[in-house]
Amino acid sequence: MRQQSVVQVRVRDTVIGGTRQLICLPVMGKARNQILLETRELVLRKPDLLEWRADAYDQVEDIEEILLCLQEVREIAGNIPILFTCRIQCEGGLKKIDQAKRLELYCAVMDSGWVDLVDIELCNEIEFVAAVRERSSATNVKLILSYHNFQETPGEQFICTKLVEAQLKGADIAKLAVMPKNYGDVLTLLNATNTVRSEETVRGPIVTISMGEQGKISRLAGGLFGSDITFGCGVQASAPGQISLEDLRLAQSLLYGTE
Amino acid sequence: MRQQSVVQVRVRDTVIGGTRQLICLPVMGKARNQILLETRELVLRKPDLLEWRADAYDQVEDIEEILLCLQEVREIAGNIPILFTCRIQCEGGLKKIDQAKRLELYCAVMDSGWVDLVDIELCNEIEFVAAVRERSSATNVKLILSYHNFQETPGEQFICTKLVEAQLKGADIAKLAVMPKNYGDVLTLLNATNTVRSEETVRGPIVTISMGEQGKISRLAGGLFGSDITFGCGVQASAPGQISLEDLRLAQSLLYGTE
Repeated sequence: MRQQSVVQVRVRDTVIGGTRQLICLPVMGKARNQILLETRELVLRKPDLLEWRADAYDQVEDIEEILLCLQEVREIAGNIPILFTCRIQCEGGLKKIDQAKRLELYCAVMDSGWVDLVDIELCNEIEFVAAVRERSSATNVKLILSYHNFQETPGEQFICTKLVEAQLKGADIAKLAVMPKNYGDVLTLLNATNTVRSEETVRGPIVTISMGEQGKISRLAGGLFGSDITFGCGVQASAPGQISLEDLRLAQSLLYGTE
Repeated sequence: MRQQSVVQVRVRDTVIGGTRQLICLPVMGKARNQILLETRELVLRKPDLLEWRADAYDQVEDIEEILLCLQEVREIAGNIPILFTCRIQCEGGLKKIDQAKRLELYCAVMDSGWVDLVDIELCNEIEFVAAVRERSSATNVKLILSYHNFQETPGEQFICTKLVEAQLKGADIAKLAVMPKNYGDVLTLLNATNTVRSEETVRGPIVTISMGEQGKISRLAGGLFGSDITFGCGVQASAPGQISLEDLRLAQSLLYGTE
């Protein structure tokens, strides 16, 4: 039996932080037709969650267009929860977007009622985080606060602290993705995940990822140690080391199968 | 790329401690016909190594019979290296056997030229270990010195020390299998494996296992962190948590595939 969250998060009919680790696939299209095509393809694979990485979209700053596109994505997704992310450039986002515009975008998307979760980074200004938290509560959208480090893996204590910081700043779900330089770094990430989960210093769901080739094991088996969502490879990968949904399901059946 | 041993061990055409983690399947038959049947079935699956757990054999104390059986096992195995183990009862062996008789058995088996490796436990009397080490060197059979704990997982330092102890006592390969009570224990085993390997405190191949359901991940992914052999489930399992060869190969292709 994998380690569950103390507090689960429910979006539509999906429970995050329960007995099963969920698989989320990213939509990374640059144009509307590509976004819709990808969404259709991914929905056929029956992921637990879909993440629209809107920062990949060429027209991300056109809020009216974003809403039109989102409405279609929502229709295609059916009852699969949608996570909306417009990743900030300094943490891997694909476009430089003004923060005022970004906030406006997030608010419009949450107001639409078409998304179930949004993800913003802990590194945003405290007022930005507070504003998104307020609007997400008002619109009943769940909030992921995230930390990414594509250069290295900080120490175990730092990782635990970041996840707790996310909880303190109001995250429904705390997410952290870091890059390993060796297998010791991969174990640091897994150790931190297990510590935060088993000591219950974070009570809601967490998502922890060791990226790249060496970190693949964290995508396959992180659920055992407490990570509640794993990000698979969509039509296009959104981060290094992502694995196909089929292979993730296979690994899950090997690891959780007989319990 | 998984972490290799500093020093590799070669038996027949098989390299232990190289770029690939090897899969060993156990033969656990109680009677000669069952032992031969199991060997035939396992050979069809093309494991990297075969372990004959002779302590499972009803006639294990009849050395003449053991040699007759072993000769047939050797013929069936073809070029697959054979590991001979008569596990001591206090570490999971299936029969109580007098130590003088056990030593006689190991020596006869090594003298036969039909086995490539033998496994004895670190807990044996120092003279017993020395005698087996001497004869194995004389007969060019590789020696595994092992530690098993079916109750719990000792601390990381203890695990590292046991593996170093095996090396100091002359092991060609150091093996340790422990039982986890939680996922923290599983990580303790993986951390120790990674420490011993990355710090090169043990230079030869190592085999480390976290047993039971929770420890399955160590059987699937321990090779990344330094464990050089994983024991799969034979026709009958020889320890709790063993996984089929097919599923082990699948997991290996996911974890090591693209490197």
